[in-house]
Amino acid sequence: MRQDVSPSLRPALIALLTDFGLRDGYIGVMKGVIATIAPSARCVDLTHDVLPQDIHAAAWILARSYRYFPAGTIFTCVVDPGVGSTRRPIAVKLGDWLFVGPDNGLLSYVLLEQTLSVVVTLSNPVYHLAQVSATFQGRDIFAPVAAHLAQGVALVDLGTPVDPTTLRRLALQPPLLRDRQITAQIVYTDHFGNLLTNIPVDMLSALHDNPALQLTFPAQNITITECRRFFAEHTGADADESQPFIYTDSSGYLAVAVYNGDAARQLAIHIGDRLVVTI
Amino acid sequence: MRQDVSPSLRPALIALLTDFGLRDGYIGVMKGVIATIAPSARCVDLTHDVLPQDIHAAAWILARSYRYFPAGTIFTCVVDPGVGSTRRPIAVKLGDWLFVGPDNGLLSYVLLEQTLSVVVTLSNPVYHLAQVSATFQGRDIFAPVAAHLAQGVALVDLGTPVDPTTLRRLALQPPLLRDRQITAQIVYTDHFGNLLTNIPVDMLSALHDNPALQLTFPAQNITITECRRFFAEHTGADADESQPFIYTDSSGYLAVAVYNGDAARQLAIHIGDRLVVTI
Amino acid sequence: MRQDVSPSLRPALIALLTDFGLRDGYIGVMKGVIATIAPSARCVDLTHDVLPQDIHAAAWILARSYRYFPAGTIFTCVVDPGVGSTRRPIAVKLGDWLFVGPDNGLLSYVLLEQTLSVVVTLSNPVYHLAQVSATFQGRDIFAPVAAHLAQGVALVDLGTPVDPTTLRRLALQPPLLRDRQITAQIVYTDHFGNLLTNIPVDMLSALHDNPALQLTFPAQNITITECRRFFAEHTGADADESQPFIYTDSSGYLAVAVYNGDAARQLAIHIGDRLVVTI
Repeated sequence: MRQDVSPSLRPALIALLTDFGLRDGYIGVMKGVIATIAPSARCVDLTHDVLPQDIHAAAWILARSYRYFPAGTIFTCVVDPGVGSTRRPIAVKLGDWLFVGPDNGLLSYVLLEQTLSVVVTLSNPVYHLAQVSATFQGRDIFAPVAAHLAQGVALVDLGTPVDPTTLRRLALQPPLLRDRQITAQIVYTDHFGNLLTNIPVDMLSALHDNPALQLTFPAQNITITECRRFFAEHTGADADESQPFIYTDSSGYLAVAVYNGDAARQLAIHIGDRLVVTI
Repeated sequence: MRQDVSPSLRPALIALLTDFGLRDGYIGVMKGVIATIAPSARCVDLTHDVLPQDIHAAAWILARSYRYFPAGTIFTCVVDPGVGSTRRPIAVKLGDWLFVGPDNGLLSYVLLEQTLSVVVTLSNPVYHLAQVSATFQGRDIFAPVAAHLAQGVALVDLGTPVDPTTLRRLALQPPLLRDRQITAQIVYTDHFGNLLTNIPVDMLSALHDNPALQLTFPAQNITITECRRFFAEHTGADADESQPFIYTDSSGYLAVAVYNGDAARQLAIHIGDRLVVTI
Repeated sequence: MRQDVSPSLRPALIALLTDFGLRDGYIGVMKGVIATIAPSARCVDLTHDVLPQDIHAAAWILARSYRYFPAGTIFTCVVDPGVGSTRRPIAVKLGDWLFVGPDNGLLSYVLLEQTLSVVVTLSNPVYHLAQVSATFQGRDIFAPVAAHLAQGVALVDLGTPVDPTTLRRLALQPPLLRDRQITAQIVYTDHFGNLLTNIPVDMLSALHDNPALQLTFPAQNITITECRRFFAEHTGADADESQPFIYTDSSGYLAVAVYNGDAARQLAIHIGDRLVVTI
């Protein structure tokens, strides 16, 4: 990929990830706050339709997305059932990116991949709105902090340094390989009904050359053996297109889909469901 | 809050509020029109998911949001069941902000809070698209007018001055305080199912210090007495988390929620439902 | 409409049309890729809520929208059930606009209206991401190509020229006029439940002056005879507002609506349903 632009010429980019939905104007208000403080910053919506309070899904989406944003992007992530309580509001430098939000595990997957260099708790009120409510800190703390970062304020000026080992992390269950069997789970279901597992494809040796690969959902008594490189492979006049198949998702994880269908609904599989892959 | 940016250096900001939804491309088209006329203007979506023709909900969202946008923001508000009829298309200066849209009551709540300085009806066709349809004036009149305002056109050049007392206003029912009882109603239900009342919290003396505060929905025979400062307060191992509680919403109004739940659905309460608060 | 801005002063505009939904972060990731390559380009969402794999609806929305965007806008259209297969990724100059996406018929309606000047297949990997997946080419091919176009890369540098006559087109069924009867179909149902036909209003001579105009859905045994210029016409105290009526949609096509109602649901009419207009 060609990329000739000097980082110093980039306008600051703020990526927003919340469970606020788009219906009530909450995201618009956060962007109004950002535009007031940092008029030249750009906002990009990562998603606002995470299921209310679903920190795990938000953590997964963030981890599959952040690498595609320019170095220096300020991710403002507010899925925050503990708003107003003692959970800490934090800002973090992780790899080449900045992250602002509540300390509640949302960074768990990114922390597996990137080096943590600075963590601060957002204790300096000069970078918050003058009035901070107990129920909408996306507007009152996180949006203004992101905007001040976009304006060039240093991370360390936002508050007090935090011991990185105290950051909250979700209790993730990594896939377990034993005796040519991987025990894993569904970690995400997308808009198309595609089922994503937590098995990185490089755990499998030569997926598409292995005729014996088999994926089973034990509780549902479902077994899938067809592997495809892309959705429309092996389709055509004599194909049964309603059959689910295994493929490698665009972020490099094993997944299950139905061509032009909704695998999650058709198979009645949900996030958290256990699966076994036999190699 | 620090705010060092000179207003003259800000790119013009256009905030969009409609009931068009995001599915059909209507909002994209309005932004295309704006980009054609005012290439450097920024658009922010306030919401496009107001229920079709729900002027009251749109008026409420607008009033809870506009203060968080920079002075000079051009709010383009198109919830417009009367499109094409004799209802007037208007542009208004209210406080430090500009508002463009149909004259149908959408500004009712903002008019309670801000000083009206100029109102014009959008009678000058030079600032409209060359062809104006009878059914999509968001595209043909309101978007181009907002874009011309962003380009520096003066409000008074857009059309004919209007007598401000003739602006349409919704018949709002303010909360009524008598004998330590406030009779009020639910004015909004958000994405999380939180129930917002029209009672500004400063109508109550010392909400959280008053052990006798009680909120009743008479028709549903529901009474709520627990008060919280934030959603996660009083939660933990021995708490019954399914109980609704009273809190102060981030815009300063009394509200009802269920922790990690949907109060509107759980209690079967709707917009317009009557409630009584006993202090 | 006044339009004084020199095209050379415009920031590049990229309009995005997909069926990815906004829930999973896929669109945010595409915008992250675009911002990495073309930091000053602007993105506008046309829609991302086309029903999964509904190429026809996407083609209709695109055709009703593109004219309202500035010349040079780069439409990036990814409704792509064939992703990863042999279907060609293409970039096209059509009239004054550029279009990037899979060659699967999505441009069918625009091709009826605009002159095709250049078509290339996106075979030059220097303008793709370094790793191209088989299932998310919106991120890996189409977004980076759009961003490079925004940075000034010439269309012909993106890949190999294609014979324009080989572009895939949907099998559209134009309305058929015979003996003062037009046989046509519903081609789109919008967010409000308005039913759009594929009958351009100039096929009718003097719609509103013709008292005998009649629209029938034969299979549903529904006949509509009321014509309105706008939704709120003929409403009032003595009107039956639940009756469907015929009007001219804002893009110049005959349509059916119910005032403050949902015609599609009320009449149980769907996309593809046949209708007969008698003049």
